[in-house]
Amino acid sequence: MSKRAHNFCAGPAALPTAVLERAQAEMLDWQGKGLSVMEMSHRSDEYVAIAEKAEQDLRDLLSIPSDYKVLFLQGGASQQFAEIPLNLLPEDGVADYIETGIWSKKAIEEAQRYGRINVAASAKGYDYFAIPGQNEWQLSKDAAYVHYASNETIGGLQFDWIPEVGDTPLVVDMSSDILSREIDVSKFGLIYAGAQKNIGPSGLVVAIIREDLLGRARSVCPTMLNYKIAADNGSMYNTPATYSWYLSGLVFEWLKEQGGVAAMEQRNKAKKDLLYKAIDASDFYTNPIAHNARSWMNVPFRLADEKLDKAFLAGADARGLLNLKGHRSVGGMRASIYNATGLDAVEALVAYMAEFEKEHG
Amino acid sequence: MSKRAHNFCAGPAALPTAVLERAQAEMLDWQGKGLSVMEMSHRSDEYVAIAEKAEQDLRDLLSIPSDYKVLFLQGGASQQFAEIPLNLLPEDGVADYIETGIWSKKAIEEAQRYGRINVAASAKGYDYFAIPGQNEWQLSKDAAYVHYASNETIGGLQFDWIPEVGDTPLVVDMSSDILSREIDVSKFGLIYAGAQKNIGPSGLVVAIIREDLLGRARSVCPTMLNYKIAADNGSMYNTPATYSWYLSGLVFEWLKEQGGVAAMEQRNKAKKDLLYKAIDASDFYTNPIAHNARSWMNVPFRLADEKLDKAFLAGADARGLLNLKGHRSVGGMRASIYNATGLDAVEALVAYMAEFEKEHG
Repeated sequence: MSKRAHNFCAGPAALPTAVLERAQAEMLDWQGKGLSVMEMSHRSDEYVAIAEKAEQDLRDLLSIPSDYKVLFLQGGASQQFAEIPLNLLPEDGVADYIETGIWSKKAIEEAQRYGRINVAASAKGYDYFAIPGQNEWQLSKDAAYVHYASNETIGGLQFDWIPEVGDTPLVVDMSSDILSREIDVSKFGLIYAGAQKNIGPSGLVVAIIREDLLGRARSVCPTMLNYKIAADNGSMYNTPATYSWYLSGLVFEWLKEQGGVAAMEQRNKAKKDLLYKAIDASDFYTNPIAHNARSWMNVPFRLADEKLDKAFLAGADARGLLNLKGHRSVGGMRASIYNATGLDAVEALVAYMAEFEKEHG
Repeated sequence: MSKRAHNFCAGPAALPTAVLERAQAEMLDWQGKGLSVMEMSHRSDEYVAIAEKAEQDLRDLLSIPSDYKVLFLQGGASQQFAEIPLNLLPEDGVADYIETGIWSKKAIEEAQRYGRINVAASAKGYDYFAIPGQNEWQLSKDAAYVHYASNETIGGLQFDWIPEVGDTPLVVDMSSDILSREIDVSKFGLIYAGAQKNIGPSGLVVAIIREDLLGRARSVCPTMLNYKIAADNGSMYNTPATYSWYLSGLVFEWLKEQGGVAAMEQRNKAKKDLLYKAIDASDFYTNPIAHNARSWMNVPFRLADEKLDKAFLAGADARGLLNLKGHRSVGGMRASIYNATGLDAVEALVAYMAEFEKEHG
């Protein structure tokens, strides 16, 4: 029997044990065909069925309307930071961006290489501890789109609302909270997400794009970065990341078995409530984020004395509570509690935190 | 016990059974750490060691000189078709391309979107059955680079020589023959290869680039497509395709255990000799490629009567000889015999071919 640790990694993150067990069982011989999924032609009937089922399951999970294409791409969210303006921002146009932390800032910097970017709002004025309300936003009149990150993985800052931007396409980096709670896809022009948090292994990006936004790519846009080319070819203009796509499909199946996104939302709420409650009930642990902007997925917290950080991490490791070290730009601790990290993991963490506080507090 | 078929797929292609067995064993719990490699942070000590070992093993296998960077990228060779001119072709420059089939043609078409491309030679005049000798090439005086594909996966056409282009950087798409026989890396400015033939799973691209070619990217080049950014960040500007990188590392380890590239070259020679001999000894099977340009990796062949194709493929499938159908643009059959497809597979194929000919010839 494998010993499985509680993995709080921000990404590449924990995957459901049941999914890994299934992948393990199918590794050398998929359904008696005598080969691994990663040895299949992407054009084979077997693989096409795997790919199509994954897409359909994702459509079911998020109730994706039929006028949206689902794309399975590569290069991570960082490649999307260029791909978005190359596909959606006319050379003489402007795009609105909301800055709430490190990832949305990176998106802004890359987009600025391709045209005029209006930073319509920034959390900087709140030290990145709160998200400016929409009444503070300075949106352009004629923006090609409005971009934001629904969850900042490093800062631990999450929107608990969807911006209202009228007819302007709303573009969202949902890398670290897609599938964690229910969303209305029809509010968005484009949703994109690196797979390595709530979807599957790294190296895959899922993009959900409204069809009317296809076909606007600039002439300098590489063919492989053109959303319309990807859409017209079912994400198989060339060989896609077949094994990652298959594994993502197994995660989607697992999510459906768990009761879908609504059920995950209930679990994720219970998990984050338990963890923030433990932090707030103590003077030893702190999280600085405004309560309505606290992330359900990434919970940064500090110890009263940072000299204790090392001992905290060592004790956590010894108990199989892994990857709790905060991002180097923030310090302290961070517990990432994506879908595959269960309530039992959070219970074990909270118990350890209480124990550690008792000993060192 | 898993039943493993003989897999002649052109790509994603067969992987060594021993590699898949090891990946299977490590799937849920890598070396007692309680997590899968795909659940590790790419910045963790454990994963960085995995990634660095993979690179070092590849360096050992190909004797890569120290003034070359090895990059682990995404997007397949097709993304490289844009990435190469975006990084190496000045806006007012010219690049020379050699056209020997479908893949080198695709590289040309994409490069033409970024500047002046001189098709210095084409196999078209030989119906793509032979490679024009270098005495027929019309190279530019001041080309930024010369590009060719060392092996055409679809046509089954392979260079058995390395072009001599003086001080002009030589760029090669080695997707379907890297690691299959010994090469002198120092002859090249840039070698790139999609992983899904001789390296690992699809979704990963390996690029081996001479350091002096870094830092020439155009202003419109997306950050994620900039070789220098990738090199400066150890291919971890953002989260790389961690699991594919790990699997590729397992393949590199396996190759070293097998005796390295020299040993693979001997095996591959024996495999292709056996198969071409069987084809040439028969009037029932034909391969049209000039003998000195016949691919060691992809062997297309036709049956005397194409009405028998279906029966041939059905019989092959029944014997566990999979994916022998030729590319739709070529028709007939194609046996891809990369490193992981052993001599036993070719022996089984040749035996079946004889049997089939006896019955239907």
